[in-house]
Amino acid sequence: MIEYRNVRVALLGAGSVGSQVARLLLEQADDLAGRAGAGLELVGIGVRDLDAKRDVDLPRELMTTDIESLILGADIVVELMGGIEPARSHVLKALGSGADVVTGNKALLASHGPELFEAAEQVGAQLYYEAAVAGAIPIIRPLRDSLAGDRIVRIMGIVNGTTNFILDRMDTDGDTLESALATATELGYAEADPTADIEGYDAAQKAAILASLAFHTTVPLSAVHREGITRVTHEQVVAARKAGYVVKILAICERLVDSDGAEGVSARVYPALVPLDHPLAAVHGAKNAVFVEAEAAGDLMFYGAGAGGVETASAVLGDLVSAARRHVIGGPGLAESTHANLRVLPIGDVTTRYQITLDVADQPGVLAEVAGVLSQHGVSVHSVEQTGGVRPEASHGETGSPATATLIIGTHRARESALAATVAALEVSPVVNSVTSVLRVEGA
Amino acid sequence: MIEYRNVRVALLGAGSVGSQVARLLLEQADDLAGRAGAGLELVGIGVRDLDAKRDVDLPRELMTTDIESLILGADIVVELMGGIEPARSHVLKALGSGADVVTGNKALLASHGPELFEAAEQVGAQLYYEAAVAGAIPIIRPLRDSLAGDRIVRIMGIVNGTTNFILDRMDTDGDTLESALATATELGYAEADPTADIEGYDAAQKAAILASLAFHTTVPLSAVHREGITRVTHEQVVAARKAGYVVKILAICERLVDSDGAEGVSARVYPALVPLDHPLAAVHGAKNAVFVEAEAAGDLMFYGAGAGGVETASAVLGDLVSAARRHVIGGPGLAESTHANLRVLPIGDVTTRYQITLDVADQPGVLAEVAGVLSQHGVSVHSVEQTGGVRPEASHGETGSPATATLIIGTHRARESALAATVAALEVSPVVNSVTSVLRVEGA
Repeated sequence: MIEYRNVRVALLGAGSVGSQVARLLLEQADDLAGRAGAGLELVGIGVRDLDAKRDVDLPRELMTTDIESLILGADIVVELMGGIEPARSHVLKALGSGADVVTGNKALLASHGPELFEAAEQVGAQLYYEAAVAGAIPIIRPLRDSLAGDRIVRIMGIVNGTTNFILDRMDTDGDTLESALATATELGYAEADPTADIEGYDAAQKAAILASLAFHTTVPLSAVHREGITRVTHEQVVAARKAGYVVKILAICERLVDSDGAEGVSARVYPALVPLDHPLAAVHGAKNAVFVEAEAAGDLMFYGAGAGGVETASAVLGDLVSAARRHVIGGPGLAESTHANLRVLPIGDVTTRYQITLDVADQPGVLAEVAGVLSQHGVSVHSVEQTGGVRPEASHGETGSPATATLIIGTHRARESALAATVAALEVSPVVNSVTSVLRVEGA
Repeated sequence: MIEYRNVRVALLGAGSVGSQVARLLLEQADDLAGRAGAGLELVGIGVRDLDAKRDVDLPRELMTTDIESLILGADIVVELMGGIEPARSHVLKALGSGADVVTGNKALLASHGPELFEAAEQVGAQLYYEAAVAGAIPIIRPLRDSLAGDRIVRIMGIVNGTTNFILDRMDTDGDTLESALATATELGYAEADPTADIEGYDAAQKAAILASLAFHTTVPLSAVHREGITRVTHEQVVAARKAGYVVKILAICERLVDSDGAEGVSARVYPALVPLDHPLAAVHGAKNAVFVEAEAAGDLMFYGAGAGGVETASAVLGDLVSAARRHVIGGPGLAESTHANLRVLPIGDVTTRYQITLDVADQPGVLAEVAGVLSQHGVSVHSVEQTGGVRPEASHGETGSPATATLIIGTHRARESALAATVAALEVSPVVNSVTSVLRVEGA
């Protein structure tokens, strides 16, 4: 029997993830000690309400509402409370006392990351946050360590399981957005108030975290362009599949150059068309996946469960073992590197491909007119498809309404600002009845 | 301009990976310094032949054949020579001198891993080997660190690009094994002597490395059961797809219990049927992917380029940055943990599902006879399909040859030893003309 030195672990929060972390820490103590080279002693679990119902029965004697004392008696603090306050104050207090912190709090990191990393650096403590992005999937450590010698060009992530579930239902079962959302709520994938998921706030937080890490640059949440899935229609999803695409909401982090040729980065979240043969297209249900394009490594993908108490607990425990190992071997912590310090560019500087669907008059010269509008804005056409001219039936003796047709235009890569101007011009074109759908195409 | 302390890096080998590592080290020196917190100074490149042709033009003044002196003047030694000797001696010398070592040498690790880890531990040096398995894909660090708090149940890896390319061609283009291999050779995916790939030796080395790491147990190469793809037929691949499967050669590392209920692990390589809706089925061409099933995290998959000079160089540089960071912050190295020390079980103890294809006499009672053989050996039947009875035409006045039919039997999970006995019995059964195909089913 090996005798290990103990590392004192304080757990803050006993919700779906926290209670699983506590359970695994207690049940697998021997295994964890073997891997960490140190015993992981759970010294206490800080909660708001001692009597709240938990997913797991936890030893009552470990529970406390005196979180301040708990923090001060710990070598490693695991923050799984969520939200900004009091989580932020607790994490700052823990780091200030020299403890390493493991957190799964994406909201906190996305909005206060620099403050926390700065606090950690000042005392040589370390902040671990694998669980904050894509649940169980190891993505933070691969980006920070495995790819540290490479240059990341682009990240495209399916990082919100709820919205992937909804879009997948719309695609594979022909559901409407509303009924798919209802199913997601029923199955526990969506919360009572699904705003954070369907409006893309959750994915935007993760985009800010991933972009900051990948590009060694502080990317504030406010600089992340965000569009949710609420305007994605059944018709768009059906048309997408017919055209060889699937609609996915993606968190995209990308190196790019602005119109003056200056380098910068972009972080954005929106629903986009993904080609059916792209690995991301095969990510179904509530699964997550992060697709990474690196200069040397080429294309990589990391796939797995993006949420769930026990799944996310796996990521927390991985960090905890790392923190414990570091505690045993000593040495100062590593600050997040923001040495690249690139400019974060607005959405207008992004270039991508677009698919524009128009309801047009079915008459000669329409295509020339539409093509002219695109060309004036420097948007070049990759493909055009006209489907079914619809001529509403004219009653006897009346003049029929003018015939209409659907025009689906695929563009080459164009700058977002040029595209926006193009769409505005199309909307007032005499031959265009309406712009039915504008979707970006990613991964093609 | 930040002034970094320099870490001295010696590179051994300037082949397809080594030359790319050298190029990136020189070209991206500033970026790498920012990430490592230390300058990575390439102090020399040890080669056998100064005048050999390289993929990349490297500064002549860095090249040397005096590898011993080069090693002794380095903080970190990067071994990319391949093969056992002299690589083993160089790595031992480097570790002995206290240098950290980064290697991509799977053969060396699979056959001498324990010796190297022991040597590293004795002096507190560290051995990094992300590049040894699945090229650019971060898999070693996720298994060692990200999943350190979890319990890995099973790994199924497509870890050899050449054989995946060949099987994929057979599946998607209807190629025979021979013509697919010829194409692989033409495209540079297969070496002049493809034995190491198609006989599964390369995959077996990677299985030994992955199993040792995942199960904290020394799994020697000799304990890895190995079957190559040379006996995979065009007919098997076609029949597989018809039945909803694709044939993939997998490296499988698994926890299991032997017939006495004692816990152990298995590492094995063989072609198997994978259901078409399994994420591994979508891994095409020469790509690699490692599918990991963990108790808490659930299913994870890591996907990307499994070979290639610049791709593998990415993994080497990631390790190099980690090693440099460690050099800056100090502290002893971490030994590979083999604390679990599980028993490595022979292939006979493996349980999996099987698909057995038989050529049988098309007469009453055949199914009962065959089912009886399976049942006697404790192998239970999951599905049976009989296809096209073939009755060879009888000439006028002659008695026709007896009619034959094809019987495809899917089994429930059965122990390999029971299956082997079943197949032996079927081979001598009077109603069985021949056992056409026996394939394991994985991931179903």
